[in-house]
Parts: sequence; C-alpha cells; structure tokens
Amino acid sequence: MASIQIKTPSAEYTVTLGSGLLRTLRQRIQRALGGGTLPRVFFITSQEIWAKWSDRATESFDGATVLFVPPGERFKRLPTVERLLEELARAGADRDSVIIAFGGGVIGDMAGFIAAIYMRGIRCVQVPTTLLAQVDSSVGGKTGANLAAGKNLVGSFHHPIAVISDVDVLSTLPKQELRAGLQESVKSGIIRDARLFAYLEKNAKAVLRGDTKALAYVVERSVRVKADVVNQDERESGLRMILNFGHTIGHAIEAATNYKQLLHGEAIGWGMIAAVRLAQARGAIAEKDAQRIVKLAHVYGPLPRFTATAEKLVRLSASDKKNRGGARRFILPTGIGTVEIVKDVTEEELLAACEQMLGEVKRARR
Amino acid sequence: MASIQIKTPSAEYTVTLGSGLLRTLRQRIQRALGGGTLPRVFFITSQEIWAKWSDRATESFDGATVLFVPPGERFKRLPTVERLLEELARAGADRDSVIIAFGGGVIGDMAGFIAAIYMRGIRCVQVPTTLLAQVDSSVGGKTGANLAAGKNLVGSFHHPIAVISDVDVLSTLPKQELRAGLQESVKSGIIRDARLFAYLEKNAKAVLRGDTKALAYVVERSVRVKADVVNQDERESGLRMILNFGHTIGHAIEAATNYKQLLHGEAIGWGMIAAVRLAQARGAIAEKDAQRIVKLAHVYGPLPRFTATAEKLVRLSASDKKNRGGARRFILPTGIGTVEIVKDVTEEELLAACEQMLGEVKRARR
Repeated sequence: MASIQIKTPSAEYTVTLGSGLLRTLRQRIQRALGGGTLPRVFFITSQEIWAKWSDRATESFDGATVLFVPPGERFKRLPTVERLLEELARAGADRDSVIIAFGGGVIGDMAGFIAAIYMRGIRCVQVPTTLLAQVDSSVGGKTGANLAAGKNLVGSFHHPIAVISDVDVLSTLPKQELRAGLQESVKSGIIRDARLFAYLEKNAKAVLRGDTKALAYVVERSVRVKADVVNQDERESGLRMILNFGHTIGHAIEAATNYKQLLHGEAIGWGMIAAVRLAQARGAIAEKDAQRIVKLAHVYGPLPRFTATAEKLVRLSASDKKNRGGARRFILPTGIGTVEIVKDVTEEELLAACEQMLGEVKRARR
Repeated sequence: MASIQIKTPSAEYTVTLGSGLLRTLRQRIQRALGGGTLPRVFFITSQEIWAKWSDRATESFDGATVLFVPPGERFKRLPTVERLLEELARAGADRDSVIIAFGGGVIGDMAGFIAAIYMRGIRCVQVPTTLLAQVDSSVGGKTGANLAAGKNLVGSFHHPIAVISDVDVLSTLPKQELRAGLQESVKSGIIRDARLFAYLEKNAKAVLRGDTKALAYVVERSVRVKADVVNQDERESGLRMILNFGHTIGHAIEAATNYKQLLHGEAIGWGMIAAVRLAQARGAIAEKDAQRIVKLAHVYGPLPRFTATAEKLVRLSASDKKNRGGARRFILPTGIGTVEIVKDVTEEELLAACEQMLGEVKRARR
C-alpha cells in the first residue's frame, strides 16, 4: 500500500493506493474526515460498476444512498448534473454530507463537480475504478462537465478529501481501456520520470497482462508525478501545464472524431507522437529518445486508425481552452523525463507534425 | 463616492459606490484588472436593464458582447446557466475574458456562478442595479442558481474582482422593489449598526422618496456592515451567519408562497418580525427595542399579506440549507445593533413566534 500526499494552497489530502482497499472504505473515509460519527454518504456511480463492486464497496457501510449515472461521455452534461443535484436534495443531503465518486473519469469529474456546487460545496471522496482515473483524473481537484461547444468547458477546482484507489478493481477493466489508460502513465514517464518510462519499456508484458504488482507500481509512480506537479502549481499557471503533454493535438483528435472513435488515452497516444515529431523537426530532442517514445506509445496500443485532416486538427487545437488571449502554448518533449513549455510554435510546424502523425495513422494496424 | 475593501483569505477587491459611475465603467474595470489591454468583456443582463442603461454602461466601451437573461427568479435555473455558457463559448470567451453581471440579484447570482464555472473560473465584475443587489447580493462572493428542490441549492463561492454600484440606476427601480430592498438595510442596522438603524428611522421620507444622497448613505452603511462581516468570516462558519437574521422564517415564507406573492425583502421583513417575537418571548430583547424594530420593518413596508400556517413555516424552515446535521441555528436579536447565534430554539418557540407574526399578517393593510 502506498500513501501519496497532496498539499496545495487550497487543500491537503492523501491518495491511498493498493489492493483490498474497498473492503475498508468506511474506515478510510472516516479517518479522512478526522473521526467522529460518519455523516450521510452518497455514492455516485454507474450500474455497471455497482453490479461488479458494490458488495465489496458497501461491506463496511450500514447503508448508503446510491445515485446512478448512465455510462459514457455523452451524459457528462449539465442536464445529468442537474438531475443528480435534485436527487441529492430530495434524498436530504446537507452541507455535512459526503459524496463518493465511484467510477471512471466521467463519473469522477461529474461527481466531483456536483460536490463542488451542491450547497456551494460539500465534501467528496474519489474512488476511481479505471486506470485512467487512478493515474490521472481523480488527483488534482479538476472537476467538470462538457458543453456542446467543447469538453470540460464547465467545471470547478474542488479537491476531494481523499482518493482511495483499489487496484483490484482494474481486474474487471476491459483490456482496451487498460491500454488506453496506460498512455497517461507513458506521458508521466516522458514528462518527469525516466525510471517509470524504463519500467514501462522493460515490463510491458506484465503490465499489459494486468499483473497486480506491476500495475500497482505503474499507478504509484504515475500518481507521484501528478502529485508532485500539482503540489507545485495547483491552478495551472505554470508547471502544471506539462501534464497536458500530448493533449493539445490529442483533444483535437477527439473533437475531430466526435469523441466516438478513440478512447481518450488513445487520442493522447497519437497526440504525444505528433508532439515528438514536432520536437524532432526542431531538433529539440535526440533521435534515440524520440524513437523510444513513439515505440512505447505503440507498445501500449494498438493505437487505432482515424480520419482527419491536419488542417482540421490544427484549427481544433487552436480552440483548446488552455489557450489564453490568442497565445498558443505547447509542451515540447526534450528527452525521456523532460519537457519544455514553449510559446513560439507556429501553425506551419503544427501542420507538419500533424501531417507526419497522420501518415503513421494510415499505416496503423487497427 | 465611497470605496469599501473586501479582504478575505480567497480574495481582495473594492466595492465602489456613488453617482455617475456607469459612464466610466471601462476605466474602473481596467483599474481592477491592474491596467493593460482590456480583455474581452461579456455583459450578462436583462432586456429591461439594457434598454434603460446600456447607453451609459457602454459609453466607455468600444464594443462588448451582450448576453440576455429573461427576467425573474424562475429562470434562475441550470438550463439558463447552460444556455449562457454555450453562448459564451460560441462567442469565443476564453480564460482571460471578463463577465460583467449587470442587473439585480438574480442576474448577479447567476452571472457570478457562470463566471465561477466557465473554464473552471473566469473573472467577474458585479454592477448591481437594484437596491437589494447593491446592499447585499453583489458583495461577498456567493453565487448560484435554484433547483426545483429549493432556492440557491447550487452555487459557488466566487468573488468578483470589483463591485461597481451606481446609485443613479436606482432612480428607475420600481418603488416596491426599493422598499423591499431596504429591508436588508433595516437588517444591517439591527445586526450591527445602530447608527444606520437610527438614520433609517429619522430619514425614512427622504430614503423612501429615493433621495440620492440619503440612498447613497444607506447603501454605503449597509455594504460596510456586510463587508465587515464577510472579511471576518468568508465561508459562513460563524459570524457570517448573522447576515441570515430574519432569513430562516423569511425563506420559509417565500417557499410557502411559491416565491410568487412576496418580494424577497418583504418576506425578510416578516421573518425579522417573527424573530423579534421569539426574542421577546424569551426575554432576550428589551420591549422598547423590539417595538422599534417591528415599527421600522413596517415603515419600509407595507409588508404584504399572505396565507400560510405556522406549522408549514416551521417545517419549511427546518429544510433550510443553513441547517447542518439536524442542528437548528437561529439568529436572535438582542437589541438595536446586536444579535446572537443560538442553537437551542425549540420547535414550540418557533411555532409560537410564527403564530404571532401570522396574526399581524392578517391585520396588514395590503
């Protein structure tokens, strides 16, 4: 079991990672609350997760209210948020109540956002059930929902009081989702942890097989990268931007394919490859390192094919909400474990990098 | 012109009060932003306010995007919020953009909430156009919207970067709204400012006539009370609760009459009278002071009649979101300028106070 501390100007809490944590969920939440009588808790989860894991998750609870969210990104919208808020109110949730976000990234983001805005903010515990949510979205306080105009355009910074990641639940995760989630770990290695990167290279088989020990190591190292970055820059005014490595083009790919063809992690995989191509064209990264990155993204693939023009991807990346006042920021890989935030990337460079990546997409197996 | 500082752990900004402020809105916003090029600004307002005051408000702007909200509490809901968020996104608002909340309490709350959650928070300037909004809702960072299950059950703490209150706009405010808004100033006097209370007694005619100088004084003193309280307790963990004097029963009256029969301030007027009756029954307040309070609430009336049972009011007040873990907090007036937060008010006491107040409601003129 590993404990990782998040300590920012606005919050302090522990991310607990390990096996068998679900069975003692109540005790862990109670400890995060500082003891005393447990207030009312409200699980927000999906029917699917609940069918698989409710026995274990409620083993330590005498009874908890459960609110269900339909699965999928397309329900991560304000009408769903409003329905859940009304259900909370009708069920008698008050300012002392605690929300348990029990699911993947969509549920974590939305339940966290609901906790952020119900009665102007109540407490939330993140209990992520996908690799993506465990290594990324459950940590750092970003919550939100989508608008028709774009993903995650509405939201709040609202940290949980605890993150409890039981690696056992990853055993029921579809293999494609596991692989896609691992792209975020590949990203963590590239931006800040050469040892994690090397581990992902050397132990790919064990990791992809879902070996609990290997996964636990990868999750822990990935969360440490995120925690370390968030602890230094909670609000993404500087350093935290490096977590968006691969995401500028990745988000554009998701938008271009209407969020239907690729999983988030798969789009990020291609986005990282495009970023590497851009860095190579600039001579910002050694050839050897560039090749290792591209190779590893494919090892945790297969990254699926999709259709889009470079022009469209560049146009869509320009409307990314990370852009401020017209300035385009880009996270450039400069080696294994190091990136750089640059502001002088031209449209031509982006176009060329996307063209090159799209050429590789055409040759992809899937 | 008066400047009042808000300084809390999460924000620092100035409330500017005076005549003729609208004409120099851009310059004032620019100053609040710390100079430099003005980012894109988006007015959120009503057709009615815009028809009356857009000439003056945009005198200093070269061009600003305007988003309209239909008037009334019943549109203070998440579907309206979502529509405005989509419009902001389509109009190209980014993280540097600034929202100007130009209207009364409903618009201020909702536009402030939109600023709180668009791209996880952008900057907002409050330009309140009703007395209620100037003396109360524009200051202190509370933003939000209603659920079907209750008023203001969804929201955020999100302070503006400036509050600019031009008393000139009060000249077009319907008299009934002016009087209702003044109940919040009566409240400010009762809870913390005996001089304001005495001024409201002595200068009732000038204030009710809408005399600019008298109103400016009342607005300034009221805002100082609020600023002083918020500066000491931003998140309503203690002292800030005194701002809810009259609101426990007031909110119950609004709910019992479906938010249709009484203006907010009118319901608060009756709520304050009920609180005084409760204090009298306990012997917590001198008879003379109790009579002065009840008299002043009526002077800034007439407080309208309504129909409700004491039982219903007590039941509705129990579901107020200020209640936590079942404990009922009540703000008890103990004199002119002093109140006390008590936790031992029984249901019987509340019932008796409501009965007495309802007896007075029956004898009301309107």
